[in-house]
Amino acid sequence: MTVSTQVRLARRPEGEPGDDTFSFVEHELDELSEGQLLLRVVYLSLDPYMRGRMSDAPSYAAPVEIGGVMEGGTVCVVEQSRNPEWVPGDMVLSYSGWQTHEISDGRGLRKLDPSVVPVSTAVGVLGMPGFTAYAGLLEIGRPQPGETVVVAAATGPVGSAVGQIARVKGARAVGIAGGAEKRQALLDEFGFNVALDHRSPTFADDLKAAVPDGIDVYFENVGGHVAREVFKRMNLYGRVPLCGLVADYNATAAAEGPDRQPGFMRLILTKSLNIRGFIQSEFTKSHGRDFVRDMSGWVADGSVRYREDVVDGLQSAPSAFRGLLTGRNFGKLLVRVSADPTL
Amino acid sequence: MTVSTQVRLARRPEGEPGDDTFSFVEHELDELSEGQLLLRVVYLSLDPYMRGRMSDAPSYAAPVEIGGVMEGGTVCVVEQSRNPEWVPGDMVLSYSGWQTHEISDGRGLRKLDPSVVPVSTAVGVLGMPGFTAYAGLLEIGRPQPGETVVVAAATGPVGSAVGQIARVKGARAVGIAGGAEKRQALLDEFGFNVALDHRSPTFADDLKAAVPDGIDVYFENVGGHVAREVFKRMNLYGRVPLCGLVADYNATAAAEGPDRQPGFMRLILTKSLNIRGFIQSEFTKSHGRDFVRDMSGWVADGSVRYREDVVDGLQSAPSAFRGLLTGRNFGKLLVRVSADPTL
Repeated sequence: MTVSTQVRLARRPEGEPGDDTFSFVEHELDELSEGQLLLRVVYLSLDPYMRGRMSDAPSYAAPVEIGGVMEGGTVCVVEQSRNPEWVPGDMVLSYSGWQTHEISDGRGLRKLDPSVVPVSTAVGVLGMPGFTAYAGLLEIGRPQPGETVVVAAATGPVGSAVGQIARVKGARAVGIAGGAEKRQALLDEFGFNVALDHRSPTFADDLKAAVPDGIDVYFENVGGHVAREVFKRMNLYGRVPLCGLVADYNATAAAEGPDRQPGFMRLILTKSLNIRGFIQSEFTKSHGRDFVRDMSGWVADGSVRYREDVVDGLQSAPSAFRGLLTGRNFGKLLVRVSADPTL
Repeated sequence: MTVSTQVRLARRPEGEPGDDTFSFVEHELDELSEGQLLLRVVYLSLDPYMRGRMSDAPSYAAPVEIGGVMEGGTVCVVEQSRNPEWVPGDMVLSYSGWQTHEISDGRGLRKLDPSVVPVSTAVGVLGMPGFTAYAGLLEIGRPQPGETVVVAAATGPVGSAVGQIARVKGARAVGIAGGAEKRQALLDEFGFNVALDHRSPTFADDLKAAVPDGIDVYFENVGGHVAREVFKRMNLYGRVPLCGLVADYNATAAAEGPDRQPGFMRLILTKSLNIRGFIQSEFTKSHGRDFVRDMSGWVADGSVRYREDVVDGLQSAPSAFRGLLTGRNFGKLLVRVSADPTL
């Protein structure tokens, strides 16, 4: 009999998720029925959208139920199979969530080929975060050669891909991250034209100097004070793909005044801006195939690089997730739930 | 010698434009040179965008200089001509501004045919306001049959056209206006499916009841409390063409808190909304020809009706303009500067 260690949602957090937000449960799995397979989770992807799933505020997706296993994308190895399409040792992309094992009927699984790229990229640069960057930047942002693209959380899996795809398309990429080390990585690892530290007391002036021709595309995934400074520099007909607002996810009350909303609307009007909220899944049908082809090519030829921040053990997931919302991670945040058999 | 009475910008207004914002000047015109023509202004169009021209805050267009003649679209009659392309009696669309006469070299004039439609429509339903409605609704709003379109200032020249074009396209049109009389006109004159009075103490509930399936397109031209209630009802993938914010045009200070901006961004994100600021001139090349064809046809067959609010005499322009910003007009606001020779 297999036991799955599960992280369940114990209560809905007010503000930052605490240790009491989650409960660890040892859950005994049934024997496999015909057609089922047993998955062992190797990597659990931690992503900012999970904060939304913990809340029952209206959103684009239903929240995790109280007592339910926390959701999440995973890379798994097939341990046992009573399904003719899968054999033990197969690596799969699944949505098994925050747990060590899961019984699956095979639906929704995608087989991964470890000989091509590391399997962890299936939840990173070649997975949901990479596709968020690709679809949002190319379909909504539509950067033209010579235009200026700005992105924050730029060492993260979405931001780093945004900057590098912008460069592939001939645009100028300005990356914003927190701290000197990340700032340097934007230049050295990810090839941004300019890198800024949003914690610097001179951030507003640094940004102004970094975009002498203004900003044509702001890929918005953080909100907060960074967004406020960026919006001041938007050009006429600027585009703002909006896929996240990490800086605000733990907010518990309406922000203090003054009310910036009227001024923001005025800015959209006078600059003829286009702000478009999106979730990557909207574009799967229209852009999924192109993404796999383009991004695989860019990763293979070195145009797009990626960085992973791996923490060990499912017990690390809650604190690692808290760090994700405050920018403590450095690259795509993964929990190595069990040993990666492909390494 | 002809004297043009001119309304010049005397000083930039703080808040609502006062009588001291303007100065009336008698300006002696030169004799006509070869190629020139003398225009007598018949109708001056008053439009909300003019408030922006009085201010030197950053905008999409340069402000009127202090001491300059207030800008504005006009319908004129040619009184004298030393230009072979024009003869006295010709009716023209021009941008002569707030004055009684102007010397023109003929550039930028458009000849009007009084036998087809009243010449005043050239600054209304068949002019800039009508084109704002047409281009913004069809290119940005893209209403589908059965969808719900909401517009405020709905008895105005933009709003009334938005609602009627939405109906032509098979959408459900919900109009918002101030007061019982305007509300009734939305139903009786303009064929909105539902009409709401934003001054009603039950406005929020009325709106909720009026859009049981939510709102797919909000054509935004007012801002303020109306916009706040409308945004709460937006559907997933809702579109918001944004061409004006009349309710805020006279604002002098940052609005009091709480700061609604973070919540607004969250709404754009969770509903995958598309907010797009625009000025109609952006679409002249791409949609101007279709507009003339479609709108003329709709006016001719009665699908689109229009209403004019005519005040007499240039001296009425300042107070009429103030009324425009607070919704005192009822229909397209025109100043009849001199007698219309086509009536």
